Amino acid sequence: MLTNVRSDRVKSVRSLSRRSARERAGRFVVDGPQGVREAIRYAAQRVDDLYVTSAALERHDAIVQAALEVGIRVHETDDAVLEAMSDTESPQGLLAVVATRTATLDEVLAADPRLVVLLSNVRDPGNAGTVIRGADAFGADAVLLTEGSVDVFSPKVVRSTAGSIFHLPVVTGLDVDATLDALARHGIRLFAADGAGDTLLPDVDVGLPHAWVMGNEAWGLPEPIRARCDDVVRVPTHERVESLNLAMAATICLATSAGATRRP
Amino acid sequence: MLTNVRSDRVKSVRSLSRRSARERAGRFVVDGPQGVREAIRYAAQRVDDLYVTSAALERHDAIVQAALEVGIRVHETDDAVLEAMSDTESPQGLLAVVATRTATLDEVLAADPRLVVLLSNVRDPGNAGTVIRGADAFGADAVLLTEGSVDVFSPKVVRSTAGSIFHLPVVTGLDVDATLDALARHGIRLFAADGAGDTLLPDVDVGLPHAWVMGNEAWGLPEPIRARCDDVVRVPTHERVESLNLAMAATICLATSAGATRRP
Repeated sequence: MLTNVRSDRVKSVRSLSRRSARERAGRFVVDGPQGVREAIRYAAQRVDDLYVTSAALERHDAIVQAALEVGIRVHETDDAVLEAMSDTESPQGLLAVVATRTATLDEVLAADPRLVVLLSNVRDPGNAGTVIRGADAFGADAVLLTEGSVDVFSPKVVRSTAGSIFHLPVVTGLDVDATLDALARHGIRLFAADGAGDTLLPDVDVGLPHAWVMGNEAWGLPEPIRARCDDVVRVPTHERVESLNLAMAATICLATSAGATRRP
Repeated sequence: MLTNVRSDRVKSVRSLSRRSARERAGRFVVDGPQGVREAIRYAAQRVDDLYVTSAALERHDAIVQAALEVGIRVHETDDAVLEAMSDTESPQGLLAVVATRTATLDEVLAADPRLVVLLSNVRDPGNAGTVIRGADAFGADAVLLTEGSVDVFSPKVVRSTAGSIFHLPVVTGLDVDATLDALARHGIRLFAADGAGDTLLPDVDVGLPHAWVMGNEAWGLPEPIRARCDDVVRVPTHERVESLNLAMAATICLATSAGATRRP
């Protein structure tokens, strides 16, 4: 049982809440049963270590067994050690250290995607995480992020994906122009989601391969990017409302792409 | 110019971040230009005082002018005073104290609503705020909350509504059974939103007056409530995804009710 909150191991895990430490180590932390379970199910070979308190060991026996079966090192810790490792206020007793991995745009395009999301300069961890979760829920083939976007391996993003980060390819650090070019060359229609768009969501043809392009929370998509897209699409809302937030707009667009809202 | 961060006035405004103080004073705080602007537009008679830093006075001149025109007391403050009044980490220089007001269920029903949301035991401020914002965006007639739900006048809820809290009636402290009875008696169909539902969202008839009934983030809707509803509705998602979060599900259901996603 690990009980020394000042050990190098604890410091090293805790340091992964910083982007620089994650990049150096090529590792990130997955906190809580849902994320850990999905990491073991979908990315077992990337899970280095699983840390579990005694209480969580009983409560989440199935998860721990699954980890042991695939040869993941499981360490029992006391509550103080797990708290010291975690960056959440109330950790749930279960935490994994996982190797970061992103896909490349070429890999994504080689699979002839029918639905992708491109986030350009999205900064808020909760938004990025919710978009990844929504992309997963509605069967998107990948989530692409431009350089200047939030780090998808930050604890807050990972937590808000609720495990979805292990379900679909995520590509990071992209140049937005080169990415739009590559998508267009592959016959993927580009739909900019923007509250000032002149195409209404119900009028969009989601039957062909397409990408939802979403901009920064505060300043949206710059005009040159909007101009590059086939349509600038707005979710129709009541006139008294200025706009939807990014996560809401992305969720609605993706659900519509998946046919999850109305029969076509 | 207010410069004394230890004044009774500052303490009194700051205390409104606590529910007990809000209930005693019958007042709450609206922080930031978007919320303040909507408070002045839609609830000017309830705005007691507006506090503005010198920088914000220049930057948000239109908002300040609108406040002065309707006779709201405007106080210039230094940055330290505004920071001391606000509970946000980086306040935007503009903060209003507003009288709380909720509607009653009878008032809502008297207006023959076509679309309402009932939140039962929803605890997360961001979720409640996002649902209020979504209800507003998609033309809902009211948001109803049961007793045991988060206080809609807490700073986090108010902030996530982005001004929508001033746009539509919000009823709080409801008994869930009595509310379901009253809605049903008024011919409002009850749709429970639940990841385990057996009716798929695309199959729901949103043409008639209806209510979306949403449960707690962790434990959902208790069986007796689901059983009281006309349909238990699930947003169809990819099988690898356990569930959507509450705010995502509510946003999609409301957008669908409004016909914002597909032509009928």
